[in-house]
Amino acid sequence: MALRVAVAGASGYAGGEVLRLLLGHPEIEIGALTGGSNAGAVFGSLQPHLLPLADRVLEPTTPEVLAGHDVVFLGLPHGQSAAVAEALGEDVLVVDCGADFRLKDAATWERFYGSPHAGTWPYGLPELPGHRAALKGTKRIAVPGCYPTAVSLALFPAYAAKLVEPEAVVVAASGTSGAGKAVKPHLLGSEVMGSMSPYGVGGVHRHTPEMAQNLGPVAGEEVTVSFTPTLAPMPRGILATCSAKAKPGTTAESLRAAYREAFAGETFVRLLPEGQWPQTSSVYGSNAALVQVALDEHAGRVIAISAIDNLVKGTAGGAVQSMNIALGLPEELGLPLNGVAP
Amino acid sequence: MALRVAVAGASGYAGGEVLRLLLGHPEIEIGALTGGSNAGAVFGSLQPHLLPLADRVLEPTTPEVLAGHDVVFLGLPHGQSAAVAEALGEDVLVVDCGADFRLKDAATWERFYGSPHAGTWPYGLPELPGHRAALKGTKRIAVPGCYPTAVSLALFPAYAAKLVEPEAVVVAASGTSGAGKAVKPHLLGSEVMGSMSPYGVGGVHRHTPEMAQNLGPVAGEEVTVSFTPTLAPMPRGILATCSAKAKPGTTAESLRAAYREAFAGETFVRLLPEGQWPQTSSVYGSNAALVQVALDEHAGRVIAISAIDNLVKGTAGGAVQSMNIALGLPEELGLPLNGVAP
Amino acid sequence: MALRVAVAGASGYAGGEVLRLLLGHPEIEIGALTGGSNAGAVFGSLQPHLLPLADRVLEPTTPEVLAGHDVVFLGLPHGQSAAVAEALGEDVLVVDCGADFRLKDAATWERFYGSPHAGTWPYGLPELPGHRAALKGTKRIAVPGCYPTAVSLALFPAYAAKLVEPEAVVVAASGTSGAGKAVKPHLLGSEVMGSMSPYGVGGVHRHTPEMAQNLGPVAGEEVTVSFTPTLAPMPRGILATCSAKAKPGTTAESLRAAYREAFAGETFVRLLPEGQWPQTSSVYGSNAALVQVALDEHAGRVIAISAIDNLVKGTAGGAVQSMNIALGLPEELGLPLNGVAP
Amino acid sequence: MALRVAVAGASGYAGGEVLRLLLGHPEIEIGALTGGSNAGAVFGSLQPHLLPLADRVLEPTTPEVLAGHDVVFLGLPHGQSAAVAEALGEDVLVVDCGADFRLKDAATWERFYGSPHAGTWPYGLPELPGHRAALKGTKRIAVPGCYPTAVSLALFPAYAAKLVEPEAVVVAASGTSGAGKAVKPHLLGSEVMGSMSPYGVGGVHRHTPEMAQNLGPVAGEEVTVSFTPTLAPMPRGILATCSAKAKPGTTAESLRAAYREAFAGETFVRLLPEGQWPQTSSVYGSNAALVQVALDEHAGRVIAISAIDNLVKGTAGGAVQSMNIALGLPEELGLPLNGVAP
Repeated sequence: MALRVAVAGASGYAGGEVLRLLLGHPEIEIGALTGGSNAGAVFGSLQPHLLPLADRVLEPTTPEVLAGHDVVFLGLPHGQSAAVAEALGEDVLVVDCGADFRLKDAATWERFYGSPHAGTWPYGLPELPGHRAALKGTKRIAVPGCYPTAVSLALFPAYAAKLVEPEAVVVAASGTSGAGKAVKPHLLGSEVMGSMSPYGVGGVHRHTPEMAQNLGPVAGEEVTVSFTPTLAPMPRGILATCSAKAKPGTTAESLRAAYREAFAGETFVRLLPEGQWPQTSSVYGSNAALVQVALDEHAGRVIAISAIDNLVKGTAGGAVQSMNIALGLPEELGLPLNGVAP
Repeated sequence: MALRVAVAGASGYAGGEVLRLLLGHPEIEIGALTGGSNAGAVFGSLQPHLLPLADRVLEPTTPEVLAGHDVVFLGLPHGQSAAVAEALGEDVLVVDCGADFRLKDAATWERFYGSPHAGTWPYGLPELPGHRAALKGTKRIAVPGCYPTAVSLALFPAYAAKLVEPEAVVVAASGTSGAGKAVKPHLLGSEVMGSMSPYGVGGVHRHTPEMAQNLGPVAGEEVTVSFTPTLAPMPRGILATCSAKAKPGTTAESLRAAYREAFAGETFVRLLPEGQWPQTSSVYGSNAALVQVALDEHAGRVIAISAIDNLVKGTAGGAVQSMNIALGLPEELGLPLNGVAP
Repeated sequence: MALRVAVAGASGYAGGEVLRLLLGHPEIEIGALTGGSNAGAVFGSLQPHLLPLADRVLEPTTPEVLAGHDVVFLGLPHGQSAAVAEALGEDVLVVDCGADFRLKDAATWERFYGSPHAGTWPYGLPELPGHRAALKGTKRIAVPGCYPTAVSLALFPAYAAKLVEPEAVVVAASGTSGAGKAVKPHLLGSEVMGSMSPYGVGGVHRHTPEMAQNLGPVAGEEVTVSFTPTLAPMPRGILATCSAKAKPGTTAESLRAAYREAFAGETFVRLLPEGQWPQTSSVYGSNAALVQVALDEHAGRVIAISAIDNLVKGTAGGAVQSMNIALGLPEELGLPLNGVAP
Repeated sequence: MALRVAVAGASGYAGGEVLRLLLGHPEIEIGALTGGSNAGAVFGSLQPHLLPLADRVLEPTTPEVLAGHDVVFLGLPHGQSAAVAEALGEDVLVVDCGADFRLKDAATWERFYGSPHAGTWPYGLPELPGHRAALKGTKRIAVPGCYPTAVSLALFPAYAAKLVEPEAVVVAASGTSGAGKAVKPHLLGSEVMGSMSPYGVGGVHRHTPEMAQNLGPVAGEEVTVSFTPTLAPMPRGILATCSAKAKPGTTAESLRAAYREAFAGETFVRLLPEGQWPQTSSVYGSNAALVQVALDEHAGRVIAISAIDNLVKGTAGGAVQSMNIALGLPEELGLPLNGVAP
């Protein structure tokens, strides 16, 4: 019998991508679709690529509309998830694609988000050591940020094997869908096409502490991340170029062995063959993360690079994968592994 | 029991897309992957987005390698399909993504392709009146050209209902994957990004007679097509803007009724709600064709516009859809309906 | 002594491009820069590519601010130009980049723009027969629309030589800057990249009557235009694919001769060598228009294609070229002829 | 009296851009245009954006053809410049856009380029301390690599003021024209659009030692650079994100003061106002370099980011600027300062 799933914030990019994946999920029946200012609109005018839902009408995001579902995905602005989750009750699986329940440290939350800390939920990055177990049977899931997903997958094997120093430098390029569907002048097509632009430079991007929170426990020591995000002229994809000083004794072989071991048995994370580097087009529309690593002996640094689709593995795919684990379904159910390329 | 399928020309864009779809097809087991100059290469270095096939090695395109499969897809240069098909024998379903068996008129074939005519196979555009029946049980399928697919779906309802004159004017924009993977200077990223460019202007594009061949029988009179293709700065997608003079008495209502009726019951062709126009992003990676039509009363013309993914509905998706029909499987098996957007 | 020039609407795409050109114009000194809701903003935060003006502050668009200049360019929303021009007086050269003074027929204006007709000014397309003379010494210039510029240049030679029937079919692709800088959801980079989309289909686009107005007098009969604009995934450029039925007796030679003659002596309009077709990248940032023409003998149609930069020849370049004529300066002063490619 | 200038390798991207700039240079007359395999071709078929040169014919790259010019620009494959320069003699100004004469250390040259070291010429990055003087009156100029230009301008002020440690980490995104016009499968438009991809990872890119050579003397100590280049889906532009550990005592104020001082009096390098970050669209087609810097106090790193057009300030613009200095002309002659945006 199919599980009934609602999506709050269905007109946004995260909500739309959750629905695209759920439409291909064999155990799911799609229930309510809700929106904020878009409530009342015909869904096909907002997400014309989701053909089977074209005639649906967006409902308002209220407890009444969201009631009666087995799973509710939230794609809401920061700060709204706690109240909705509470109203839904403890028996409903709530999967929050927002940031509200990602960070453990209240002070850090408040410094970066400027609002009271709501708490912490099991973190939907099952490949990160220790997290898959916490997702089994849970009724609450905090979906990771897109950049922390890419960066954590690229770096955690090196930290787990104690091969690098705890000061990481990350420069990541993201497709524009990572900035959401809210209209802002700098996100106009005329502005982004043909242009690379940095933003949130100098340690102020909200995903920075989430990366440190993910890598520190794996490293067994506090990890500092210097993170610079850039906007790339493409709709989707994150390419995260990460590096850290190699610890004495680190070799190309020990590095490769660490990554091979870390990803062994994982369906969605692949260490590429030596010499082949990840490109975002390979994971377009896919839940896969491609990773490669190298040792720059002259500069004494380990370079690890990952490519993900920010809307799939970085958001909706990670969300559905975690939902599968929480519900006891096969982890890969309904999730595309192949990219849409070229 | 799964059907065993081989793909000849697996390193090209058509072959790669056939494989992407087959990997999601529940009744298929992927057999041999063959290439020409790429034979011997590790598949993951050529099609890095097809993760489950990454460790495969491309074999040469020989009768021996292709033997022993239930279905063989051909993504070969023009002129090579006949010999391969003959060697495979009459019991194997051969699906030719090339042009060799599309045109009925030998003289037209020779004028446009400059080589001897090989013959005609059942034509893989099931939505075109009369063609679905011919595909049932066939062992040979000629997959339509990408432009003729888009244009025929946009115009045939108007011709079927005798609402337009038999002189059509078509301007279509295609993503660059339609030009294939062979490297040519004008297809470099530096050249195509930020640029629209026409080619094959003046009635010389090879897809022109295929459009006339499709529309004429539906119209019950010879149809002439003035066709101008243009290359757009995007990897995939065709937007076909088609028009013809309205016959006397044609109204917006009669037009809409004709299209509604023509597409009734079709899974993959959708007439959009009035006022909404198709865009290629809505069908990115999908087998759907979106169509809209309008009557310009001042100019006295019917304008019909379709959007397809040139590699899916325009090639590999049409091929798999036709294969399903030939094999007696559900027509939509393994075929994505939703686009990957944004 | 330099002429003092003000730009009203300096923060928009038209205003910014006028300024880019004026910064390279040897006879111009840039005076006031004004804006609407952006008044008070530092110019470098709005147009960061115009380095010499980065520290300027936008002033409000008032008669006082615009007073005291020799030339005033207007890049204002429709309906605002008449009042501003009147306040400036008859001695100031006013160059209106908007539509207010383009159409001669009041009823047509009102049908397409929904507001009272303001009148007609000399039309800034000097290459169109009869218009250069009217621009000499004028104090009022209506800058043509970007699509009418591309279409009129592509088609007028065929009409002037009576080689085609008076029913033209035009499909044009435009870069997104043609839609302006006002933020709308469908203009987000995530939406436009990788997508072609039509709009204003069926004879409703406001530039349609302007094309007919340009071509009719040249043809000596009323010309009807079926016009379909499409949005292409690039910031700049228009590719206009235009066709009309060939009149009896039209040959490839007569066609070519007509175009050669029509563009003889023109600096900015070039008939390409036979077999070479225009692409928008060749005119990126340039005031040139590239044109090519062919006769499709099978379909009986003449196909004429032009490429321009919508912001240069299609707006700001046409404006500056017309200003030069009005002021008695060399027509090409300050206008780039070479494109920025690749 | 105009200087007569020849361009060898005129059909490539570097040669084409040199010509675009020279066409706007008031003291230059363009002489011979030469090519390798393209010799004999009509220039307009190769560089259709350079309208005034469209009817020229490419000559072969021989001493005879290149003789009789005051200046010769070389856009040749590595290893060919020395012989051409010798044949031209000591009185001709030779500006080499290739790498042959950039590196001082023969062993480093041989390790990275695999061929014998040709020597060192004055280095065409006048803003780098000590280099402008060496360019005055020279008859030989080695044009810097595009990445070293972007990175050196971003980092040298911090090193000159001793504010950062000598281990720099650089991740740079380049438009595809940086990879040249030679056709390779991974440079096809279908492959690069919608994709970010790294290459030359792990310290093996040839521009790495050039960066170290530029920064070391300014720092007064050996500087190690960990450099990762990535290919971005745009034709032009480099965004270089550079960082290094802050030395004790470095403050946001000392940093800003160092950059303000370093760029004082420079026409083409601009420190942006605080809070505004460079984007490549702002320098599209322009010889400007935009720079911004910040101190990440938590991570203890200085982040400096620059944006240039790889073909202008990164190649042809730097070449023309250096030519101007060598010839005693005003440094900015013929060089665009404004970008072509959007």
